[in-house]
Formats: sequence, structure tokens, C-alpha cells
Amino acid sequence: MTEPQTPPQLQPHTASPQALPRTLTSELAAHEGRAVKLLGFVHARRDLGGVQFLVLRDVGGVAQCVGSGLDLPLSESSVEVTGLVKAHPKAPGGFEVQVETFRVISAATEPPPVEIPKMEWHVNPETMLDYRVVTVRGLKERAALKVQAELVAAFREHLTGSEGFTEISTPKIVSAGAEGGANLFPIDYFGHLAYLAQSPQLYKQIMVGVFERVFEVAPVYRAEEHATSRHLNEYLSLDVEMGFIEDEEDVMALENRLLAAIMERLRARCAKEFALLGAAIPEVPAHIPRITLLGARQLVAEQYGHAVGGKDLDPEGERLLSQHFLQTEGSDFVFVTKYPRAARPFYAHPELNADGSVNPDLTRGFDLLFRGIEITSGGQRIHDHAMLMESIAAYRLKPETLEGYTEVFKYGMPPHGGFAIGAERLTARLLGIGNVRYARAFPRDRHRLTP
Amino acid sequence: MTEPQTPPQLQPHTASPQALPRTLTSELAAHEGRAVKLLGFVHARRDLGGVQFLVLRDVGGVAQCVGSGLDLPLSESSVEVTGLVKAHPKAPGGFEVQVETFRVISAATEPPPVEIPKMEWHVNPETMLDYRVVTVRGLKERAALKVQAELVAAFREHLTGSEGFTEISTPKIVSAGAEGGANLFPIDYFGHLAYLAQSPQLYKQIMVGVFERVFEVAPVYRAEEHATSRHLNEYLSLDVEMGFIEDEEDVMALENRLLAAIMERLRARCAKEFALLGAAIPEVPAHIPRITLLGARQLVAEQYGHAVGGKDLDPEGERLLSQHFLQTEGSDFVFVTKYPRAARPFYAHPELNADGSVNPDLTRGFDLLFRGIEITSGGQRIHDHAMLMESIAAYRLKPETLEGYTEVFKYGMPPHGGFAIGAERLTARLLGIGNVRYARAFPRDRHRLTP
Repeated sequence: MTEPQTPPQLQPHTASPQALPRTLTSELAAHEGRAVKLLGFVHARRDLGGVQFLVLRDVGGVAQCVGSGLDLPLSESSVEVTGLVKAHPKAPGGFEVQVETFRVISAATEPPPVEIPKMEWHVNPETMLDYRVVTVRGLKERAALKVQAELVAAFREHLTGSEGFTEISTPKIVSAGAEGGANLFPIDYFGHLAYLAQSPQLYKQIMVGVFERVFEVAPVYRAEEHATSRHLNEYLSLDVEMGFIEDEEDVMALENRLLAAIMERLRARCAKEFALLGAAIPEVPAHIPRITLLGARQLVAEQYGHAVGGKDLDPEGERLLSQHFLQTEGSDFVFVTKYPRAARPFYAHPELNADGSVNPDLTRGFDLLFRGIEITSGGQRIHDHAMLMESIAAYRLKPETLEGYTEVFKYGMPPHGGFAIGAERLTARLLGIGNVRYARAFPRDRHRLTP
Repeated sequence: MTEPQTPPQLQPHTASPQALPRTLTSELAAHEGRAVKLLGFVHARRDLGGVQFLVLRDVGGVAQCVGSGLDLPLSESSVEVTGLVKAHPKAPGGFEVQVETFRVISAATEPPPVEIPKMEWHVNPETMLDYRVVTVRGLKERAALKVQAELVAAFREHLTGSEGFTEISTPKIVSAGAEGGANLFPIDYFGHLAYLAQSPQLYKQIMVGVFERVFEVAPVYRAEEHATSRHLNEYLSLDVEMGFIEDEEDVMALENRLLAAIMERLRARCAKEFALLGAAIPEVPAHIPRITLLGARQLVAEQYGHAVGGKDLDPEGERLLSQHFLQTEGSDFVFVTKYPRAARPFYAHPELNADGSVNPDLTRGFDLLFRGIEITSGGQRIHDHAMLMESIAAYRLKPETLEGYTEVFKYGMPPHGGFAIGAERLTARLLGIGNVRYARAFPRDRHRLTP
């Protein structure tokens, strides 16, 4: 390595480390009895005088290295180690490296403000986030982000590989009125007022007219003032929209298959991360149980004595309903269907009566609960221009402020529907992380704009 | 289909269309002589009195359908057709469908403002963008977006499948000073001034300390006032950063392999789109030619009489240089290396002299030109904290405003580097699209916030 600012440190033995290819700490078993070269960070260190112990962390995991006469640098320094791999029952992974050469690639100039190997979630969370540039290196912290990366990859892979979807990229800068809602972050766009998009809703619908089945993985923005353990002001939204459907059942069936594919990939690739976090990968039933929202409200009231106000479920209602379906059907997932219009936006497709007329109370909208919390809102959307204009009137909205939305429905949009999954919320729930902020590398909240 | 608002139209023959599975227009050859069901949009139509012709467009392409007694709806209506597949040399794809049943799924209420089959790029571009909600359905328009989706998928697949990279998601809302530059869009973040991120630069560097090799696919923002054919105010950035490198050659070698993998996937999956657009998929040399920036300036001056002012290349210089390497080495790509410090930001790693001292003039930064235009900026970054602070001083920047940037370099960052590719610019250049706005579904420019 060409690194004149940090000259090579003590090299107790002569060797030719450059000639060895790099081995990852996760690959030691395959190299027992042979020399390897490791590159990584000083995760932990201990100097017993004559002997030095070093836990080296790389992308594969950690490995214990032991040597003598080593001048160990500060924790988190980047280092190169060469040495012999020996079985050692007490070392992480069952092997250790007996150091032959040791070189500091890039020395830390300060000890980390938090001891990385000793971090635990729920301990001083704000401090952990303040120093996120280095605390994010923690094994549990990175495990959550690794699981999320695999989850997102599985989402894409299943939709493009098995379901004929096309990925799209839509604007996050939108004009006033595009969403028509509150909780928008204003942007100064060349002197014009614009907003950060709360969702790609309209754009993914437009793109159904192009590719029929589309998805997007991109950040969305909610200017919610209150801090909760389940909300982020900026999060990664996994958005899906599909055309030529019969009704919302087609959308739920797709999400059912998609979740099964995601869990299958996590099982194949993230067993280590789930083990580290003490979490279990859920089984996805071939047919996730469904209950109507009215049925759900009745169930939690009658069987659990929990009466919910308003038109929706509350967090405690969601928890009880999930608990019920886990106990009675062994399912971590449950679809709550036929949401009332009062709890859904104007573009939600109304439920139809047996004679084909519009049911004024219910929609074809659904939520998906997973382990006690809502991870999806979805449903069929209105595609018929006349029905859309009637819905806008029924919601007492001004059609002239929604022209940007209604325009495309003049051009033969097919029946369609979709859903969105919050990547961080699903990750947190999968891994038993109490606060969704830890399922994002650099979360944004009411008081946090850095790092 | 449950669609009471648009009752079934004329059905000239009795049949049971629901019993047939859907066939795509691209699959007709395999169904010659058999009945199929098509779903799609009325792309074009012609009524000759006794006979009606309909070109149906779906995600697979277009198919000619011919029938009698059909009450054809407006163009862009969603329809269902069943009928027999017959070979027909003059029909697109060589087959046509003889209509047995015809049903309007969702009728357009207005003719499209632009005739979709007759659109051509470069004709009334602003009108085309004004009506993008429907003009984006055009075959050439969607071909560009399809190629982009495949290009992005290949980028991800190669990095995760062959190079050990992990995907990350970083904040697009950043605090003042995080980038330290001009051309920022201001956001009102709960009463605090924040900005839209111009690039994930610092965040991807931080994440090298976590996963060693990371990438991100996400929008970035440039508040550039002037409109050019190569700039967008919001674009999709394909960002890469890798740790434990020797120097920028490792980064260029990675990009070389990555481009080869992208073109391989496009060749396998997008031949139809390239044919439609009359474009050729480039060969990626096993070793893309390299020339230093100083060498490049000298070459275009001496061989082509084009003297470039400033410290960089200008668009004409880029064009000439590309032309030169195409003619002399048969390469559509050329790396321009060793950019001067004056043309690179403070975090660019300086070139080192033979004795290991810092070269005050040059960096380890590079650009990649493709068919006459820059599609990448990249290079090695400074990882050593002391060198970074010296660079900040040399650039006459205020270190206290850059503390958010410099913090992580106290913690042993390994040598690292990376690059970013603008997805729309690469797409446009691949397909011979003159203006980069047509390589984005819903472009944002100085005057365009909608649709």
C-alpha cells in the first residue's frame, strides 16, 4: 500500500504479505494450518505485555489474532495482518491467526467516543446516533443494515425476475398540491415553492400506463413533528403498483408471494445476522389470513376488551390483532381489509355492492400487520375518470387543485392497485429493534439533521 | 373484470375470454393458429367500415388485431381482445390476431393531446414534456426507460454478485455546510435551513468503514440555473465507493469490469429497444485506454488545433478526445486521469511523488468519457486525517465548517475511492438521445416542476 503519511509499523518477522491474496475473517476454517493475509479494523485489543491480542473486524465478521512484540494502534485503525490459521475453540468462529507480520494501514488519531464492541442498543440512543459515523460500524448496527440491503435486493429480484415488473425512478421534488396533504417539507425551487414527495403514488400510477407493473425503491419524506419509535422523517419506501387487476385480492396475493421470496432470501443469506440479533425469520403462510377492518375492531373489542375509537385500529389494537392471529393461525402476518373511506384518501377504490353500485362507506384498501405493527398500506385505486371526479366531490376536495393528479385518468387507465412497504420498519420488526431509527444508517428526525 | 362504470362493449361472437390465460403481444409466434387473450392499450386504430384495424400495445410490444363490427374506443383506452393468431408478413412481428371478442376495460374520455404512435423525439420537446403523463407511453420513450432499468439492475447485480458490495441508503436532507458548495436547493426542515444532497459523497465514505465496498442508487440534486442538454436538476446517481485500495487504478479497473457487465446484460435483454432506437451497444475494452488530463489537453491542441482554456477539458475537447480514441484504439470509452487539484474538491487524494511526498498540483482523480461526453467523475479520496486537514488549509476552506466531513477520518479510514455515474446521461449517450431530459420519466428543470 502506498501510504507515506503512516509509515509501516513494527514488522516482527520478515515475510512477503503482498504476495498473499486477501482472506476474509469468515473464511478462516478453509485455511487451517496455512498462512493468510487479513485486512480490516482493530475491533478490540488487549496487551498482556509479552503477548498482544487483537480482534480484527472486516466485512465478513471478526477474527482473533495473537502475536508478540506488536505495537497495537488505537481501536478502529485499519490494519493488515499475516499469519498462520490455527483451530482455537474459544476464539470467535473457532480459529485464530498467529501473527507473523503486522502493519498499520491507517492509524486512528483518537479513540472512538463509544467503545464499538461494547455497544448495546437501547443504551444512550441519542449518543449512539450523535456518533453514528463510527458507531454504525458496530456488529449489530451493521447487521441490521445488511439485512435491509438483502431484503431490498430480494424485493427487486422477485418483482423483476418472477413477476414481470419494471423499476422506475420518479421525482422527489413535487409541486404544490401534488399530494394535497399536510406534513410536507417545503423547498425553495428557483424561487418557487415546491415540496419533498411523501410518496410516488401518482407517478407509479402513471407508469402503470407504460409498463403495467412497476416498482420503485427510493426515499420519501414526512414532516411529522412528533417523534415515535415507528416513524422517520425520511425513509426508504418500497413501492409497487400493478395494472390489469381484478380487485385488491390480486395485489394482496402479489404481496404474499413477495414476502415469501424475501424471507427465503434472508434465510439463505442472513442467518448469521439474525443469530447475532437473536431474531427469527418468519414463516410466510401460503395464504396470509385476512380480516376486514370492521371485523378486526369487533374482534379486539369482544375478545380482548379493547374498544378502539375513530375509524381505524390503534397501535394496541394492531398488537392484539396480530397476537390473535399468531395464536389461532400461527401467522406473523395478517391483512386487514375493506378500510372505510374515512380512513383512506380520495383515490382509494370504493368497495362495490353486489349490483355494481358504489358502497359509500368502504374501500378496497388494506393494511398488512406484521408482529403487531402495520408495515404496508395498499389497495385498489380508482382508474375511472368519472368515478374519480365523484370521489373528489364526495371528499369535498377542490378538483382544480387536483388537476395534476386527475389528468392521466382521461387516457384509459386500466384497473390497478399497489402498496408500499417501509424498509426500515420491516427491518426493525424482523430483527426486534425497538426503534426504527436504528434500522437506518443516518436517520432524520425532528431534532437530527446530522450526521 | 369488475368494472360496472364501463359496461362491456359490443361482443360480436360468443366466447369465454376469461378462461384463456393472458398472452403478451411479444409471444404471438408461439401461439400461431390458436386462440389468445390480449390485454393492453389502443395504440392506433383504423375503421374501414366493414373492417376495423386495431394496434394493441402491451408491455411486450404491439400487435395488429383485425375484426368486423367492432365499436372502437378512443386511442389509449384499455381493452381486452381474444382471437386467433395468424401469420401476416406485413403486421408488426409477423403475426396478427383475428378478433373474436372485444371488450373495453377502461375507456379514454379524451383523445391524447399528442398522437402516441406518431411522436418523434426532437419534435416539440416542451409539448411532449408538458403531456408526459401520456406521451411517456410512446414506444421509444418507454424503450429508453426500460434500458435504464436494465442498466441499473446490471449495475447492482454485478456489484453485489461479483464484487462483494453492499447497497446503502443515505440521507438526501443534509445540514448546511455538509457539501460546502453552491447550487444547493434549500429546504425548510422544521424551521431550520437544510439542503437537498448534491451527492452521497461523505456518507458513502463513512460506510466504507462499515461494509468496505458500498454502492447507492438514489436521486441527487443540483440547483443549476442554466439549462443544457446534459444536465438535470434531479437525477439518478449510481454511486460506488470501495476501501482497501492501492490507488485509483483499482477503482478504474472496477468501473471497467462494471461497464462490461452492464453492456453484457443490455445485449442479452434490450436488443429490441436498441434496434427501435437505431443505437448500438458498445464493446467495452478489457483495458479502457487512459490518458492524463495534461496529455489530453496537449493532444487536442496539437492534433486537432483545439486549445482549451481553464484547467479541465471543455465539451468540444471531450468530443475530440473521444473521437481520437475511437479512431486510434476503437474504444468508445477513455479514462482521463490525474486531474489537477484546481479542478477537484479538497477531498481528492493528491498524486504522490516518487519519494512519497505530496504533489501540490495533481490529484488521483479521473473522469470517464463515453462517446464524447463525461459520464463519470471518480478517484481516490484522502483517508488520512492530517492530510485532509492540510488539504482543507491548502484550499483556503474553513475547517470548522467542515467538521461534519472530517470527523470520521479520525477513526482509521482505509485508503478508498469511488465514482458516480449519472444514469440518465449514460442512458441518453447509449441510445443517441440528444437531450438527457428524455432519459428521465419526469424531468425537473429550471422551469419544470410538473408533471
